[in-house]
Amino acid sequence: MSMTPDAINRLVAQLARLPGIGEKTAQRLAFHLLRTPDLARGLSNALVEVVDRVKLCPVCFSLHDGPEASRCSFCTDGRREDRLLCVVEGIADELAIERTREFRGRYHVLHGVLSPLEGIGPEQLRIKELLTRLQEAAVEEIIVATNPDVEGEATALYLTRLLKPMGLKVSRLAQGIPMGGDLEYADQATLARALTSRREL
Amino acid sequence: MSMTPDAINRLVAQLARLPGIGEKTAQRLAFHLLRTPDLARGLSNALVEVVDRVKLCPVCFSLHDGPEASRCSFCTDGRREDRLLCVVEGIADELAIERTREFRGRYHVLHGVLSPLEGIGPEQLRIKELLTRLQEAAVEEIIVATNPDVEGEATALYLTRLLKPMGLKVSRLAQGIPMGGDLEYADQATLARALTSRREL
Repeated sequence: MSMTPDAINRLVAQLARLPGIGEKTAQRLAFHLLRTPDLARGLSNALVEVVDRVKLCPVCFSLHDGPEASRCSFCTDGRREDRLLCVVEGIADELAIERTREFRGRYHVLHGVLSPLEGIGPEQLRIKELLTRLQEAAVEEIIVATNPDVEGEATALYLTRLLKPMGLKVSRLAQGIPMGGDLEYADQATLARALTSRREL
Repeated sequence: MSMTPDAINRLVAQLARLPGIGEKTAQRLAFHLLRTPDLARGLSNALVEVVDRVKLCPVCFSLHDGPEASRCSFCTDGRREDRLLCVVEGIADELAIERTREFRGRYHVLHGVLSPLEGIGPEQLRIKELLTRLQEAAVEEIIVATNPDVEGEATALYLTRLLKPMGLKVSRLAQGIPMGGDLEYADQATLARALTSRREL
């Protein structure tokens, strides 16, 4: 006979499937949820709502909760520039860029990066859809805003080789010392990149 | 207009209410759940199930998923000793003790500890119910297994003062160097406690 009711064991098992949440944390969360039934019900409803209502935009693969197969607000917003397209790894990156209020073009969400070790090739990303889209849209410049890490750089290189021959301008986000940063405390790689990418004033 | 569908914002808000989960982690979890609808649905169901099916035992305040107002398996198990009662802060402590397989008495779960700063007095804990229970049960010894921290010690002292005059034997878990521990690396307080609580061989 189990020491805890099965319902709790099942909740702990589900919570432990979340990234970064181990068995101990899952148990602690489960007991907390048990003591706060309002939160447990609210979270349960929010989960079902997300699964039922949130869809991917069929053009840029951003999220939206409009009717099935309809385009997202980034794609339908008439004030955004069609000539600029920002390619990002995921939704979180798209939101980070959007929060800067500096970008008024369109987006394309890859939903991943190339990672041979994890078996993720171009077919697993939304690259085919990007190419299809470029045949119709009036895009002039593509900003490849993947992360400046090994996979992100490899993905950017792959996309550059694919897109440049199509006559498109391809760019990357600038890298260097962060705003308000301190030369003394910048890591070696960042400082080296800041040096080689120096701008003439 | 919000950048993310409202359904996602609501899920992030609910996740951020969990202890130890901040806004950033909540957003990361929400996007993960969005990509794994199976997990989102499984977690949603497990939450509802826990809220609907898990109840507190009306005697010892352990958890059970039996019929409403029925007693838990700790209370109904005929092989457990009625004369030994272990008082714990919460369900997780009860399970930790149970895992040792060293304790075969009954339990009483306080669901908290005395904490004047957080406004938790004796009325907020299951102490009145403990006293009522002691008037009927054949308890001889009460092991006060609250944590060896400020609140746990204060709660143990409060219970000792309440229970000793009733002619009950009251005990605390032993404190000292952990099994397999190393004197050299033991913290000062633990080592001091191990010294003053030394056992004659």
